[in-house]
Amino acid sequence: MLVVRQNPKRRAPRLRNPERTRERLLQAGFREVYRHGFQSAGIDAILAATNVTKGALYYHFESKEALGYAIIEEIVAAITRDRWSLPLQRSKDKDPIDALIGIVQAIPARPRDVRNGCPLVNLAQEMSLLDEQFRKRLERIFHGWQEGIAMALRRGQYQGTVRRDLVPEETASFLIAMVEGYEVLAKNAQDAKVWNMGIRNIVGWLSSLRAPRNRSRS
Amino acid sequence: MLVVRQNPKRRAPRLRNPERTRERLLQAGFREVYRHGFQSAGIDAILAATNVTKGALYYHFESKEALGYAIIEEIVAAITRDRWSLPLQRSKDKDPIDALIGIVQAIPARPRDVRNGCPLVNLAQEMSLLDEQFRKRLERIFHGWQEGIAMALRRGQYQGTVRRDLVPEETASFLIAMVEGYEVLAKNAQDAKVWNMGIRNIVGWLSSLRAPRNRSRS
Repeated sequence: MLVVRQNPKRRAPRLRNPERTRERLLQAGFREVYRHGFQSAGIDAILAATNVTKGALYYHFESKEALGYAIIEEIVAAITRDRWSLPLQRSKDKDPIDALIGIVQAIPARPRDVRNGCPLVNLAQEMSLLDEQFRKRLERIFHGWQEGIAMALRRGQYQGTVRRDLVPEETASFLIAMVEGYEVLAKNAQDAKVWNMGIRNIVGWLSSLRAPRNRSRS
Repeated sequence: MLVVRQNPKRRAPRLRNPERTRERLLQAGFREVYRHGFQSAGIDAILAATNVTKGALYYHFESKEALGYAIIEEIVAAITRDRWSLPLQRSKDKDPIDALIGIVQAIPARPRDVRNGCPLVNLAQEMSLLDEQFRKRLERIFHGWQEGIAMALRRGQYQGTVRRDLVPEETASFLIAMVEGYEVLAKNAQDAKVWNMGIRNIVGWLSSLRAPRNRSRS
């Protein structure tokens, strides 16, 4: 899986815009890790994709691990934040169950998304046992994700739209487990139909969280 | 992660009992793959653990892949069958919701189980995109698992203990997604508490599948 870079003309890194170079390395690194996993990800493939020299890469990231940590903290964390936490914050005046249903239905279900699975689960499955630094950074994302959903559910309980008998943190974890579990099943089946069936079932379950007087809406 | 075997005295394989040798290789192969993943699993570590020669290993399994396929078909499949399908078949006269609750509560939750995660999910996450032969064998296990649960639910619908409005195959997938999703979360958290919270929530959800007249039991 290592793509060896053929580099006939060695060029100095374009340090005039180091921020842009760093961002390109991060994006290419994310794609490579998403496709092959962290351990099999090839530094040479990342360099080939960005046309950046090894020297410039190690100027920005002191090791492959450091690049991996930055991918988690800056790219994987942003995916979860953009997909879950920000929409939940923006919809403060809305019924949180409606907001959660909208978010779940908006998760990309293109064949290539299903084929590659969820970047967060892939990394957690591969690395959390092997490297405590990876595990802690991934756990921070899971916690933020859980806390965002739990806050929305608490707000709904206060507003009277969400059942009072549920524990917001536990229910948030439950939702995350369902989403991640279906990502695993759909990736193994390599079939978007499995994911779409999952969405339907998760939406049905989310509707069961509405306070009794709001049930007619679902 | 490769443990190189120090083998001062080369011995001929103990072919007097080839079936036993094969079984020991399978068990040691499973443990090595479970700990390190298939790609990082070391043939030398498997040989060291079993005290079998490389020649004997390749007599039983023509390649590392062939050993991997046998691990899936004979060990991983048996775990799912023993934990789910057989207890469901044995409890034909019982309420299937009670049987499913019993099965979920009996899933091992020792720290080392939580630490290493679920063998089926680990392999599916690592290999289903890379090797179609792995993917198909793992999918067969998921299908058998789903079908076993769906059959129990259908029986419960017929007996009047399970809600008639649910689709048995979809509900079975939903349960599998929940179990696998919590395995991922607990593995990342490296914390059996996450798994125990998951069990509690799954049991609560299972109780909601009872036909209305059976609800008082849960």
